[in-house]
Amino acid sequence: MEINGKHCQTIWVNKENNQLIQVFDQRFFPHKISVYDCVSSESIFFAIKEMVVRGAPLIGVAAAYGMYLACLEAKNQPNQNQYIISIAEKLKSARPTAVNLSWAVDYMLKELDSETEMDLKINKALLLATQLKNNDIAVCENMGNFGLEIIKKIAQQKTVSASGVNGTTVNILTHCNAGWLATVDWGTATAPIYKAFLAGIDVHVWVDETRPRNQGASLTAFELGQQGVKHTLITDNTGGHLMQHGMVDLVLVGTDRTTKNGDVANKIGTYLKALAAYDNNIPFYVAAPSSSIDFTISDGINTIEIETRDENEVKYVQGKLNNEIQSVLICPEKTPTLNYGFDVTPARLITGIITERGICNASEEGLKTLFNEKY
Amino acid sequence: MEINGKHCQTIWVNKENNQLIQVFDQRFFPHKISVYDCVSSESIFFAIKEMVVRGAPLIGVAAAYGMYLACLEAKNQPNQNQYIISIAEKLKSARPTAVNLSWAVDYMLKELDSETEMDLKINKALLLATQLKNNDIAVCENMGNFGLEIIKKIAQQKTVSASGVNGTTVNILTHCNAGWLATVDWGTATAPIYKAFLAGIDVHVWVDETRPRNQGASLTAFELGQQGVKHTLITDNTGGHLMQHGMVDLVLVGTDRTTKNGDVANKIGTYLKALAAYDNNIPFYVAAPSSSIDFTISDGINTIEIETRDENEVKYVQGKLNNEIQSVLICPEKTPTLNYGFDVTPARLITGIITERGICNASEEGLKTLFNEKY
Repeated sequence: MEINGKHCQTIWVNKENNQLIQVFDQRFFPHKISVYDCVSSESIFFAIKEMVVRGAPLIGVAAAYGMYLACLEAKNQPNQNQYIISIAEKLKSARPTAVNLSWAVDYMLKELDSETEMDLKINKALLLATQLKNNDIAVCENMGNFGLEIIKKIAQQKTVSASGVNGTTVNILTHCNAGWLATVDWGTATAPIYKAFLAGIDVHVWVDETRPRNQGASLTAFELGQQGVKHTLITDNTGGHLMQHGMVDLVLVGTDRTTKNGDVANKIGTYLKALAAYDNNIPFYVAAPSSSIDFTISDGINTIEIETRDENEVKYVQGKLNNEIQSVLICPEKTPTLNYGFDVTPARLITGIITERGICNASEEGLKTLFNEKY
Repeated sequence: MEINGKHCQTIWVNKENNQLIQVFDQRFFPHKISVYDCVSSESIFFAIKEMVVRGAPLIGVAAAYGMYLACLEAKNQPNQNQYIISIAEKLKSARPTAVNLSWAVDYMLKELDSETEMDLKINKALLLATQLKNNDIAVCENMGNFGLEIIKKIAQQKTVSASGVNGTTVNILTHCNAGWLATVDWGTATAPIYKAFLAGIDVHVWVDETRPRNQGASLTAFELGQQGVKHTLITDNTGGHLMQHGMVDLVLVGTDRTTKNGDVANKIGTYLKALAAYDNNIPFYVAAPSSSIDFTISDGINTIEIETRDENEVKYVQGKLNNEIQSVLICPEKTPTLNYGFDVTPARLITGIITERGICNASEEGLKTLFNEKY
């Protein structure tokens, strides 16, 4: 996708120095567009933990490059394998909810295990990480193409049955940033939107601001604006009212972890939007690359560990003031807060799951039709 | 209730000059505690429109004092009655959703109509406004006493059946500020909480921050802290997750307008919390003084006009930075936004309505048992 009219991806190997991994520093988007240099596995850990990069798919790819950097570092360690394993554990601990993270790290560990010579291990790690990156792009494009069909159908229905009240534009609500900034390119929930936009369908996106970190306001609104897709920023409180009044045709969100029976962990607040969609008979789809599906667990609500984050994320809001990035305190100094990062939307509220292999029902039976080998 | 240990009310007539109405300027709470002088009906209009004062009950009382100031001003007008009527219309236009506003203004108009002599009209207006103020306090206390019984029952049940998982504390979630700052004293939704606290019941309040204006973070957290009531600030996205995990025993909110069949217009986002409470079988109560019940309408979703407010309220967040009150931009400069102030929670999701006459079902039959004379 594009920033200032130039095609970009969220993570890349520096052209002149292949021991340097670079990412956009998403902490200061949209006010400051800057690149963050990952010179070590430690800086990849920092980038994931502190949300320099975020979004389950991008976290996975970043962690894979972190394992590559760990291999480079291992050369100077007395016990190379032990070092690589310790970095793997550290990387996995950076964000507990996203399953892509441990998936990517474990995949790298397993694949690298067969290579005994360190230089070959390093070369293989770089190759594997880059494969994972390219695979992520392909996966997102596939989800985009499958999801496009859902939007096409709604557009056709609206054109046929147009009562005029809410026009023929397809209005899509999304929560948080499951955009290309959360992946390498295209995004998960946004891939169908970009595909529809490129196919000439009249789409408009309601962007939830997504407190406490405002990824909707700072990232989704930014990337849709850069692409020229019509959108409107709303507070997280607003979606229910819009749905009650026929102003939303489709809800499309991403996921950090989906269970084998279709429960979806995603950014806190997703569950509330799913309830509203269900109450108003509006289709609610989740774009879930299979790397984010955890085929080892069923009961999302009682099994998925929900990350609690720093209470200052609730107390302070970051934004631009006089061309600088500042944080303002929004409550009394001593007010206690609690900051859960995710919630779980039960499968019963979800219309369907969009994967790189197609769309299925949010249920064990549904997911089995696409991923039978996992069961 | 108290500010810095001193008993206060939100609005009062200045002791030395009874032509001066004073209010706390709630725009800068909790960072700056200051008093706003209402020297004219115009400044009352400004105070309501710009949310120097807010909260349906307080708006009603402020408007009544605005009518008193209008009577004072009318003395110097060629057509006194016409002047008073024009101010009445203007005051009613300041906030379209709150029914208390038009109720209070119309009440004043009607009562003042019988008084032909201007000086007597002025005296009567001051008397009536002060009566409305005192009545608001009594109404809130009544709701507090009725609501206390609900909390008492939950506390007893939790003590008997204590599994230990979530303790015996009664956890109450509230949205926006339906606290004493939204009324003259006690509050609507908070009155039962304060009564329970004073009765020695172990209560804890989950405070929704309530974007876009953050009345939860800046007002509810402030007033509960001043009173010493345990509370935790959360983002508006968090309530659903808490309810899924047994961390909420009761939802208590206020209302700006309730229909005769129990549909409730309240701060945007209330509907989402009601859906979550319903989905998790958690009692959801609305504290509705009868002045906020509109007995002329039934269908809340299709009838109640929902105020849209300035889009900058979504784009900028106000808070404290270096001891000054500042606003930071949270999205790209040109991002379009839409800012609805309220939503409507359908009666079917509401466990009960707490009024100054008792508690009833959220239905025409329910409200009739308490307000038969209105039907």
